[in-house]
Amino acid sequence: MTADSFDEDLATQVAAGDRRALARLITLLESTRADHRARAEALLEALLPHTGKAVRLGLSGPPGVGKSTFIEAFGRHLIGLGRSVAVLAIDPSSRVTGGSILGDKTRMAELSREPRAFIRPSPSAGTLGGVARHTADAILAVEAAGFDTILVETVGVGQSETAVADMVDLFCLLHQPHGGDDLQGIKKGVVELADLIVVNKADGETEAAAGRAAAELKSALSLLRADPRWRPPVLLASALDGKGLDAVWREIERYRAVMQADGAWEAKRSAQARARLWSGLAEELTERMRLRPEAVELERRVAAGELTPNAAIRALLDSLV
Amino acid sequence: MTADSFDEDLATQVAAGDRRALARLITLLESTRADHRARAEALLEALLPHTGKAVRLGLSGPPGVGKSTFIEAFGRHLIGLGRSVAVLAIDPSSRVTGGSILGDKTRMAELSREPRAFIRPSPSAGTLGGVARHTADAILAVEAAGFDTILVETVGVGQSETAVADMVDLFCLLHQPHGGDDLQGIKKGVVELADLIVVNKADGETEAAAGRAAAELKSALSLLRADPRWRPPVLLASALDGKGLDAVWREIERYRAVMQADGAWEAKRSAQARARLWSGLAEELTERMRLRPEAVELERRVAAGELTPNAAIRALLDSLV
Repeated sequence: MTADSFDEDLATQVAAGDRRALARLITLLESTRADHRARAEALLEALLPHTGKAVRLGLSGPPGVGKSTFIEAFGRHLIGLGRSVAVLAIDPSSRVTGGSILGDKTRMAELSREPRAFIRPSPSAGTLGGVARHTADAILAVEAAGFDTILVETVGVGQSETAVADMVDLFCLLHQPHGGDDLQGIKKGVVELADLIVVNKADGETEAAAGRAAAELKSALSLLRADPRWRPPVLLASALDGKGLDAVWREIERYRAVMQADGAWEAKRSAQARARLWSGLAEELTERMRLRPEAVELERRVAAGELTPNAAIRALLDSLV
Repeated sequence: MTADSFDEDLATQVAAGDRRALARLITLLESTRADHRARAEALLEALLPHTGKAVRLGLSGPPGVGKSTFIEAFGRHLIGLGRSVAVLAIDPSSRVTGGSILGDKTRMAELSREPRAFIRPSPSAGTLGGVARHTADAILAVEAAGFDTILVETVGVGQSETAVADMVDLFCLLHQPHGGDDLQGIKKGVVELADLIVVNKADGETEAAAGRAAAELKSALSLLRADPRWRPPVLLASALDGKGLDAVWREIERYRAVMQADGAWEAKRSAQARARLWSGLAEELTERMRLRPEAVELERRVAAGELTPNAAIRALLDSLV
């Protein structure tokens, strides 16, 4: 069998919802081999008419907030509503740690046994930009395979939240059930990416604290946001006893209705795709320039204040001709 | 006189603090003519040993907050303390409006008459990235001319605050004397760029409201920041009667002492210069790619969902070979 006819079969199998074919396609997309990537991109091209119909959700939160327990509970809740759920992840630290999230499927044991769920560990190689591009492609792949709800989890390291927010329709921040000075988990700018905040662990001993955290977050958000179309709601939930999961999904549906009403939903996706084109191109071109022998010395001189950045840019561009 | 010997004189004059020579150098830096820019960069190169000694301050705030009145009063306060003050600006909208800030020096009539002040309008052409690079170069030019305090004003449009924060030592946000739902002026992420917040117009009828706004901001900041070294202070000031200007400068001096104590001051400048090198290079390379005839059609197909961003990137990179 030639690679071409093999790939034709693979595309057909993915479009028919074959999970092993889907896993193989994503592996090809993440490959560092140029011939694999070229094949994967041709496959994705063929599958593009089957993409775009899912709700794409981003999910982040500080370590210890209970992300995997929440995804397990929320994913099963969605399946109970008749939906199909694909869980993807961005974890740029996994290169170092050998995969700190989702590497172990037993972390979401119940959800991974569901026939209408698909859980994929984070791609484990490359820069954040590269990992993010792989995950953006994986979104299209699971859409082509028919999943109608996609959760993209981020480990919350570095700029990974921004990368996820730039590839999903709605970005949800999971929050610890405590606030004020006790609130260490929120990084610069992350609250402001959120379209929805869920204070988790609103149960047992932490229920009262969760309520206070939600009130503080509401007050902070009222200072920081001014989009008249959508004021990000702050919800209480408990992944442990399932409380509030229905409200989370209702708010997501409401968000979709609001955004689809005036075309903002599709416009955001178009803008995201265009931005991925230009930022990905800039990253590829810059990586090529960094590999040039003169780049290291020019960067050192710029950092030491011996050379202006513009002079170094000119020197690098001149070396291209 | 040849251009070379003319430039040698110009460099000497700038280093001696000649303001007309300084203005000419900045004009060369902002020129769209490649030969002008090459000369300007050679000049800046020669002047680099004289740079780096100033305190570089960024200043932003919503329209109507009283930025120019504040700069006028604060600049004169600094001159009273024996300092010399250069005011630069980033206004990416000036291309359209013909220069909405600092185009008219009479806006800062008193300060512009001071012998130890230098006020330069925003460069009026180019993308935000281009304007920002010109302003970063202008910082070096005014440092070479001996100014020890630099205020970079931004009009607060689009991403201009981030661009300014990335070229200064300390970013100061001016705030309206009102808070809560009334607070429309704060954009996503801008509060979190601030190393210092000044609530202006803490005088007369708005004095009580300014105090309430400061309290709300303090509460919001306590939620959002976690740098143990520096918790951004919120100060009250009145540009009208000069109240609080001394405290603003004291906090800036304290910030410098804290950051210089463990090398963070210099490390930040090195990181800023390196980041300017790579982001500027990426912008230049991407601009060149956008001009390629195939780029428009590829971008249209990506935005329409007919082509993945990665496939378009590959097509553009292939066209380079």
